[in-house]
Amino acid sequence: MVSYFFKRLPKHIGIIPDGNRRWAEAQGMTKEKGYFFGLDPGIRLYELCLALGIPELTFYGFTVDNTKRPSYQRDAFRKACVEAVKRLSQRDAALLVVGNTSSPQFPPELLPYTQKRTVFGKGSVKVNFLVNYGWKWDLEHLAQGFSALPSADISRVDLIIRWGGRRRLSGFLPIQSIYADFYVIDDYWPDFKDEHLYQALSWYQEQDITLGG
Amino acid sequence: MVSYFFKRLPKHIGIIPDGNRRWAEAQGMTKEKGYFFGLDPGIRLYELCLALGIPELTFYGFTVDNTKRPSYQRDAFRKACVEAVKRLSQRDAALLVVGNTSSPQFPPELLPYTQKRTVFGKGSVKVNFLVNYGWKWDLEHLAQGFSALPSADISRVDLIIRWGGRRRLSGFLPIQSIYADFYVIDDYWPDFKDEHLYQALSWYQEQDITLGG
Repeated sequence: MVSYFFKRLPKHIGIIPDGNRRWAEAQGMTKEKGYFFGLDPGIRLYELCLALGIPELTFYGFTVDNTKRPSYQRDAFRKACVEAVKRLSQRDAALLVVGNTSSPQFPPELLPYTQKRTVFGKGSVKVNFLVNYGWKWDLEHLAQGFSALPSADISRVDLIIRWGGRRRLSGFLPIQSIYADFYVIDDYWPDFKDEHLYQALSWYQEQDITLGG
Repeated sequence: MVSYFFKRLPKHIGIIPDGNRRWAEAQGMTKEKGYFFGLDPGIRLYELCLALGIPELTFYGFTVDNTKRPSYQRDAFRKACVEAVKRLSQRDAALLVVGNTSSPQFPPELLPYTQKRTVFGKGSVKVNFLVNYGWKWDLEHLAQGFSALPSADISRVDLIIRWGGRRRLSGFLPIQSIYADFYVIDDYWPDFKDEHLYQALSWYQEQDITLGG
């Protein structure tokens, strides 16, 4: 990190860790194997953000739409989410899992983290994990005000970084992402490098913030 | 157009014509002058889409958030929207204006186009114009179902093209843009070139469509 100095850092980064299946195929593995190789990058990225003092991170685990995929893929990404939370629980974070818990697709192991933020260590970084999240499921509560959203405890996102080259939000927190700056990395998520984060942050600090004004 | 052939075209393109004020300043004009120079590009882009057979276009006119700007700027962008609709009315389009009409910021001249689609010529291209649009104003109706949204007659957006270099959606139709592919052009909107559209379409046709599946 020594050669990187940032004049302005985002307060909240959204992470879309895409490309696990394409990565696995490129390695000659079956698609679902990719999710497991996304675990180390997630922890590494969390560590870098902790060191930089970034106060909030949201990881896009999986969505209601994703659960239409074949069951062997679904089992693999559900398992990867449970394992990610387990690893994070040995760190310094305040964890919140947000998603539709009233569906059989929601991993029961993660239920304890959905009601309120759980502090691990000093709770230095707020880490939000979207698990069986649905944009529609979330937004349907808006008429009752923002505080009624299932994602109400997740703050406005300043910067979204997506791996895997696709330039779309795919339903990632539509309300919180209204004014988010969007940075796309072509490499697949399992090929995460520290450099990716630094590139995104270097770009981000040159953007203005207008919020439409 | 002769050297361009597209194997897959979007059915609906969203246009974020940003950079008018920065363009004007770069030309040594006052900021608000830029909006006027965005009119010809809009008509040109519409003509190209008509020729390509693209069935639907949505232009981001101005938003509720934008109206917090100084009144001389506000007057200029309101006037530009009225003029854009006037020019379009001499063409071949089915026009719908969507925005919060119960605010004094909404230009009264455009009220006749808000209740239902108005056909000009053969009505070949659906053209939606967001005028005094607010993402929050739109989404608050979601609990009553999609058909209750003020933007319900605007279909899912396949491709969003934003001029002016910023990589953010800034509240552009959050629901319809959930799975939209997002292409950013660094040039300011008044510097529109046909090539910009062709570049975006060439990129778009190489993207896959998964809708999360």
